[in-house]
Amino acid sequence: MIKIQNTGKRRLSTKAMNKTKRLYAAIIAGGSGTRFWPLSREDMPKQLLSIGEKNTLIQGTVSRVSHVIPLRQVYVVTNKKQVESINFQLSESTGILWDKNFVVEPMARNTAPAIGLAAVHLNRLDPEAIMVVLPSDHIIKDTDKFHKTLLVGADMAMEDYLVTIGIKPNSPETGYGYVKRGKEIKKGVYSVDRFKEKPDRETAAKYLKDGSYYWNSGMFIWKAKAILAAIKKHMPDLYKGLMAIEKAIGSKKEAETAKAVFSKLPSESIDYGVIEKAGNIAIVPTDIGWSDVGSWHALEYILPLDSDNNVKHGNVISIESKNSIFYCGKRVVAAIGLDDMIVVDTADATLICPKGRAQDVRKIVDVLKERGSEEYITHKTVYRPWGSYTVLESGNRFKIKRIAVKPGAKLSHQMHHHRSEHWIVVAGTARVSNGDKVYDVHPNESTYIPMSTGHRLENPGKVALEIIEVQNGEYLEEDDIVRFEDMYNRKTES
Amino acid sequence: MIKIQNTGKRRLSTKAMNKTKRLYAAIIAGGSGTRFWPLSREDMPKQLLSIGEKNTLIQGTVSRVSHVIPLRQVYVVTNKKQVESINFQLSESTGILWDKNFVVEPMARNTAPAIGLAAVHLNRLDPEAIMVVLPSDHIIKDTDKFHKTLLVGADMAMEDYLVTIGIKPNSPETGYGYVKRGKEIKKGVYSVDRFKEKPDRETAAKYLKDGSYYWNSGMFIWKAKAILAAIKKHMPDLYKGLMAIEKAIGSKKEAETAKAVFSKLPSESIDYGVIEKAGNIAIVPTDIGWSDVGSWHALEYILPLDSDNNVKHGNVISIESKNSIFYCGKRVVAAIGLDDMIVVDTADATLICPKGRAQDVRKIVDVLKERGSEEYITHKTVYRPWGSYTVLESGNRFKIKRIAVKPGAKLSHQMHHHRSEHWIVVAGTARVSNGDKVYDVHPNESTYIPMSTGHRLENPGKVALEIIEVQNGEYLEEDDIVRFEDMYNRKTES
Repeated sequence: MIKIQNTGKRRLSTKAMNKTKRLYAAIIAGGSGTRFWPLSREDMPKQLLSIGEKNTLIQGTVSRVSHVIPLRQVYVVTNKKQVESINFQLSESTGILWDKNFVVEPMARNTAPAIGLAAVHLNRLDPEAIMVVLPSDHIIKDTDKFHKTLLVGADMAMEDYLVTIGIKPNSPETGYGYVKRGKEIKKGVYSVDRFKEKPDRETAAKYLKDGSYYWNSGMFIWKAKAILAAIKKHMPDLYKGLMAIEKAIGSKKEAETAKAVFSKLPSESIDYGVIEKAGNIAIVPTDIGWSDVGSWHALEYILPLDSDNNVKHGNVISIESKNSIFYCGKRVVAAIGLDDMIVVDTADATLICPKGRAQDVRKIVDVLKERGSEEYITHKTVYRPWGSYTVLESGNRFKIKRIAVKPGAKLSHQMHHHRSEHWIVVAGTARVSNGDKVYDVHPNESTYIPMSTGHRLENPGKVALEIIEVQNGEYLEEDDIVRFEDMYNRKTES
Repeated sequence: MIKIQNTGKRRLSTKAMNKTKRLYAAIIAGGSGTRFWPLSREDMPKQLLSIGEKNTLIQGTVSRVSHVIPLRQVYVVTNKKQVESINFQLSESTGILWDKNFVVEPMARNTAPAIGLAAVHLNRLDPEAIMVVLPSDHIIKDTDKFHKTLLVGADMAMEDYLVTIGIKPNSPETGYGYVKRGKEIKKGVYSVDRFKEKPDRETAAKYLKDGSYYWNSGMFIWKAKAILAAIKKHMPDLYKGLMAIEKAIGSKKEAETAKAVFSKLPSESIDYGVIEKAGNIAIVPTDIGWSDVGSWHALEYILPLDSDNNVKHGNVISIESKNSIFYCGKRVVAAIGLDDMIVVDTADATLICPKGRAQDVRKIVDVLKERGSEEYITHKTVYRPWGSYTVLESGNRFKIKRIAVKPGAKLSHQMHHHRSEHWIVVAGTARVSNGDKVYDVHPNESTYIPMSTGHRLENPGKVALEIIEVQNGEYLEEDDIVRFEDMYNRKTES
């Protein structure tokens, strides 16, 4: 049942195929992505967004790596909160149920503990495992060259090097760390002379001109056991903790132990905690059309520009605007004479700022968080394994949703204590369990689910089911739900 | 049953009261107000908007003048299209049915024909009528001083002067015409030396410094017969047309004659066509906190400013913005570091432009018009005499509306050929006529109106009725309606 999408046209040689048997991916998906508000939300971090493409960033990352690494050897390292959404997205894009392919961090502690935890798990699976560490929320345009780079790095990793992938800079970026290469080890591979923090503009320009500096991409290749050895040497406390977790794996105490260990760890990046201190480092410089999509500003490198240097996405009417980024949806956004601005529009929120202030979006998010605003937490449309729902309006004692259910999908068998629901079918056929009755509801027909009555909504048909739900009651939040049975094994939320 | 709102605290003396018996107002409401998009729409021109106040501009204009002129002598000069909305707004704010107080232009031909037509009607009512001409979409902050100015002007009008009200300038505005005063006729009243077109910045600054120039406000006071005499002299073709219309008033041919006359008239302003050529002109200079609200830019003169010189209305989060105007609603608008910008946000459209480009909003409207966009024509929420409806979503073969019905109000008895309707009551009580049945529907209850079935919705209660309507069908526009009976005497639309 493994279906690999977007594998590209190139086929690997038999030799390369043999090498890839050892390869495992650890995709790091921990970010909250506040810099992409209003498109990102607490329950929709950056890796779950599609930015100008059909695939979301994490779907793209998995798709890209799946040509070189079999999907069953691709793991996502993330926290509990994101498991359901990522599982849903990756199950959809790969066609396999993803729930066995997670390494779940008990809490966020930056990349060193996350990568260490993944290394422990992979090392148990295969003591010779070669681990490809990839951020989940970056963009790479040249997939072919990316694959070649991985294979070059894997060769070095087999010789026990800790390999970092360095990106050939094409502009004096101040937002990235840099790596200066040392002497050539073999064709296309260098030792590392030194790591450099994010530079100022002038220094970045020097690096660019020098030609021996590369952007630190956060992509690494190494044997699981090699990174564990390096952690043992440079971060002994983390190593001790990881060993305690390893001992508990499979026991009743696994979750408890991991939580206890992580809660005591300081947040630390793998770069600063290990790589910059290790001796056996190699860099594979490459030029693969990479972007870390670090802020809205990055869109002008990713999306096409019009003749006035604008990015225009969605329903934008622009008169004499230039050098600006418009990332909009269905609503009309009309701009006159803007220059060097960013405008992002979603159903419930709009962001407007000069390009130079794109990093300050997190200040807006802080204000929304403080206010407890919905616009910080969630979108009007929420995606679920069975489909999606859109809140059309909330009022006093009522809430209206449009619910879309995929063919063959069903919501959990559930009950609400505080609300009754009117359902009107506008497309497709609904199979409704209502108390002890089961019946079908067709377009232009309606049904009523009384309070405290067990019910279930299912799409038995071949086309999408769309219903309008009008909820009535004194409490209309998502957590008023009692689940009896769920085909997606969820315990909370609808 | 005449209820006068916002009459202010000052009471008129008996002498002044006697004088006001002769006073009639002609409020000119013809503008399309494209400069206030996205708040103004084709079916919601500027005079129907409330800008930072509870009253709409036309309600404010009527309220202001009603202290000096009895409401039964206040007439609105407008076109057919706007009669229903204005009637609804003024009936609501004044408490009297307004439908007898219109002078309806057959088509827009600028102010000379509009004022001429009003003069013909007022002259028939009262050969000594003094006519106060007021634009419907301006703002005046000092109502008391405005009243005093009107009475001074009325005194001059009784002596057969054509009186123009001049506004003392407080900035070198280039968007207004100017009037230079001549010698003093009596205290506070001057002859007119000359009229000046909109000046450039430098000239405007000279006018401001000179002290004898005033803004041309578009407010005039004269006897109806005096302006007709002036029209006869300076615009003889218009006069002939007006006399033809007068002859037809009350006959079957009234509408036909007016249409025939107007269709042949050129568009002409009363200033250029008559006033600037007439001899018996007087100016009453005054300082009444006047603004013509000519563009979004004007809001900074009307609404309060924060400590960074921003106007902030609605759900705005601004970080380090200054000198900017934010006119928003419920949606979150987040702005970082804006300077000298205008941002206007409505449910379905957002406008962003530098203050200096506010006049170019009409270019956006042109684009929308060309596209036939809904966002040019109407708002998501549409006001009707019985209440309002909001389109929550339109999809393939369905449309969802929230409908609010005022206590005691009822929609027309109607029928649709192409759609059926599900109604779910979320607040209040609905009395539903459905075919030959009449029944009440309460919160959390629903009912179904089949296609081609006569039906009526009524709020028999004391609190607002709110229902959610889900329409199903192949054609869901407002014009699929057959009206059997309507308490508001409407022939089209719901």
